[in-house]
Amino acid sequence: MSVKIAVLGHGVVGSGVVELFYKNKASIEKRAGTEIDIKYILDLRDFPGSPYQDKFTKDFNDIINDDEIVAVAECMGGVEPAYTFVKACLDHGKSVSTSNKELVAAKGDILLASAKEHSCNFFFEASVGGAIPIIRPLHRCLAANSIDKVAGILNGTTNFILTKMYDENMPFAEALSLAQELGYAEKDPTADVEGHDACRKICIISSLVFGKHVYPDSVYTKGISQVDLTDVAAADVLGSAIKLVASVRKLPDGRILPVVMPTLIPHENIMSGVNDVFNAVLVYGDGIDQTMFYGRGAGKLPTASAVLGDVIEAVKHKVTVFSQTWEPSEDQSFVAPVDELSCRWYFRIPDDGGMPEGTVEVFREDGSLSFITSGELSYKDAQAKAEALGALAVYPVLD
Amino acid sequence: MSVKIAVLGHGVVGSGVVELFYKNKASIEKRAGTEIDIKYILDLRDFPGSPYQDKFTKDFNDIINDDEIVAVAECMGGVEPAYTFVKACLDHGKSVSTSNKELVAAKGDILLASAKEHSCNFFFEASVGGAIPIIRPLHRCLAANSIDKVAGILNGTTNFILTKMYDENMPFAEALSLAQELGYAEKDPTADVEGHDACRKICIISSLVFGKHVYPDSVYTKGISQVDLTDVAAADVLGSAIKLVASVRKLPDGRILPVVMPTLIPHENIMSGVNDVFNAVLVYGDGIDQTMFYGRGAGKLPTASAVLGDVIEAVKHKVTVFSQTWEPSEDQSFVAPVDELSCRWYFRIPDDGGMPEGTVEVFREDGSLSFITSGELSYKDAQAKAEALGALAVYPVLD
Repeated sequence: MSVKIAVLGHGVVGSGVVELFYKNKASIEKRAGTEIDIKYILDLRDFPGSPYQDKFTKDFNDIINDDEIVAVAECMGGVEPAYTFVKACLDHGKSVSTSNKELVAAKGDILLASAKEHSCNFFFEASVGGAIPIIRPLHRCLAANSIDKVAGILNGTTNFILTKMYDENMPFAEALSLAQELGYAEKDPTADVEGHDACRKICIISSLVFGKHVYPDSVYTKGISQVDLTDVAAADVLGSAIKLVASVRKLPDGRILPVVMPTLIPHENIMSGVNDVFNAVLVYGDGIDQTMFYGRGAGKLPTASAVLGDVIEAVKHKVTVFSQTWEPSEDQSFVAPVDELSCRWYFRIPDDGGMPEGTVEVFREDGSLSFITSGELSYKDAQAKAEALGALAVYPVLD
Repeated sequence: MSVKIAVLGHGVVGSGVVELFYKNKASIEKRAGTEIDIKYILDLRDFPGSPYQDKFTKDFNDIINDDEIVAVAECMGGVEPAYTFVKACLDHGKSVSTSNKELVAAKGDILLASAKEHSCNFFFEASVGGAIPIIRPLHRCLAANSIDKVAGILNGTTNFILTKMYDENMPFAEALSLAQELGYAEKDPTADVEGHDACRKICIISSLVFGKHVYPDSVYTKGISQVDLTDVAAADVLGSAIKLVASVRKLPDGRILPVVMPTLIPHENIMSGVNDVFNAVLVYGDGIDQTMFYGRGAGKLPTASAVLGDVIEAVKHKVTVFSQTWEPSEDQSFVAPVDELSCRWYFRIPDDGGMPEGTVEVFREDGSLSFITSGELSYKDAQAKAEALGALAVYPVLD
């Protein structure tokens, strides 16, 4: 008997899921250990000429009321109506695989609880890092390790822009336009450029690793729109690349500190070489030391591949995978404020001809002087120092 | 009720498994969903003063005859007696997790069949890439993707040596001595330096990805002992790093071509930045495009972390994970000979002052001239060309 699945949304990711499914149907069925077919594709639009005419529906009830449907791939994006649909699926015992980070970051705890209650699975590998297997390997690393820190380049659009700024000395605005032309950035690029997309993804990772739901509002988030070409060049001379880094670390008192900021990654760190639209996640644990996962963080087939991988998993595992979950947490006091972020810092200050105290290497250009602090400073102290020095730019350095 | 496990071998990895287990026991039990304890540690040696006195045994029968033992971590290394012990465990329905690549490369098909027959699991994440989750993510990528190629830096010792040659212009012999001093290389370094260790690992990956057991004897294997400092410098000028790359690709006719050779990795490829004892595996699929997994490929705690992850998996899954398996294959004709390897090639030839035909960029030093072919050549044709030119070195370039 063939297992039936449904796909919600026939946009970029949703159509990729259908395409990849039929391309690799034979091997997918071999891996899943059963025949599988797509019975419904939900979309309000018409797709004349599509080979999947018999599968399209505009009515979600067709799916929710069909007992044959075992698993659903949600590829609509946005919180609503995705949340209502996904919740209904889980409440009816239908497992869901989603690529929707906004949904997971906002409602993950509730959806995981629904899945548990109704003995099905809510999977979201595709919501972080696109094609890169991150959620399950993380979950696996977690099994035998105590994880201290996770740091990632989680947004392909901003990484593309920063790569262009570095490789071709292209100013931010021009690199953004190019990204829009190539389809890497939306017409309204705010969510990517200002770090909100990366923030949602580090919330999902933080929730999974530390077991409590972390909301985007709890995370200090600063995007790349103020990163200057001078900083990109100065960082390079000082031995680093500027990347939009989303990270979370465990503090000695047990609280966690997630943050999204343009960050200098020293060239010795493999993640400094992650360029263009590629994403990467570095995981630090007591057993593994450090492990990095790298690949395409977005795009039609890469994201579809992750969604499908989860669908296959859901078809194979008919009982809830309890261990890949986290608790709701209205009280966000376990999330420390950015003021406590302690690391070395990059400063660019007006050049008065002198050398800042304790500085060995500096970079001078266009009347400004850049340096990296030799010791660690809290964010709070770094801000005070920046004000005292009249700093033009201040960024953390990844240790 | 607490689940009981046993550890075979109390050397570097085995003692690491015990150490990491007791360090993270609480979180391990949370992830496994059950209490777990180590009941036996098998080793012929005495460990006076060890806090685990009550667990040591010299008699394997204690373990095999104890119905309480659900899962066994094999950390002895070598084919025998590991094979006999592991086979006996599986035949008694006890799942096994191993870090022993020699065992998996030689007997994986038989052991996987035993596990299947007796409804338990034979897991071997730790046998490839140490701490790096590779086997399961690969298996996961496989689910929705057609995988065309896998290429990896799978041996930490040789990568350390090549990094020293590159960074510090240190000759091979000196870098090898340093690796031995630091404990990264054995007294007899043959297995690492001549590529046999990397060969076993690419056999395991090839078997898993393409579904049939590939034996080490079927894989053309060339180590790094002949890599010259001149080649390392020339490769750099020509835009690449020389690494010991173990790879396998699918040919258009369905056969596969696994090979281990010193290989030029262009600087644009993220894997060219994998240095020191770190390992990495790049997977190429039709959905994911390319994904890389990176981390410590060896060492006490990294390897122990992977072994333990598998033990936890075995404790959680009491039924066989069928999809992570492959078939025996006495007939190795599906493995193509190295002669058919087609790629661009690096040549170093005696410098007669001229430019080889069709060459744009060359590097001249110490009376020799290095270049990379503009088009692809088969290994066979590259060898013929090398002979005709009196080449001093010929290496493939990773595309």
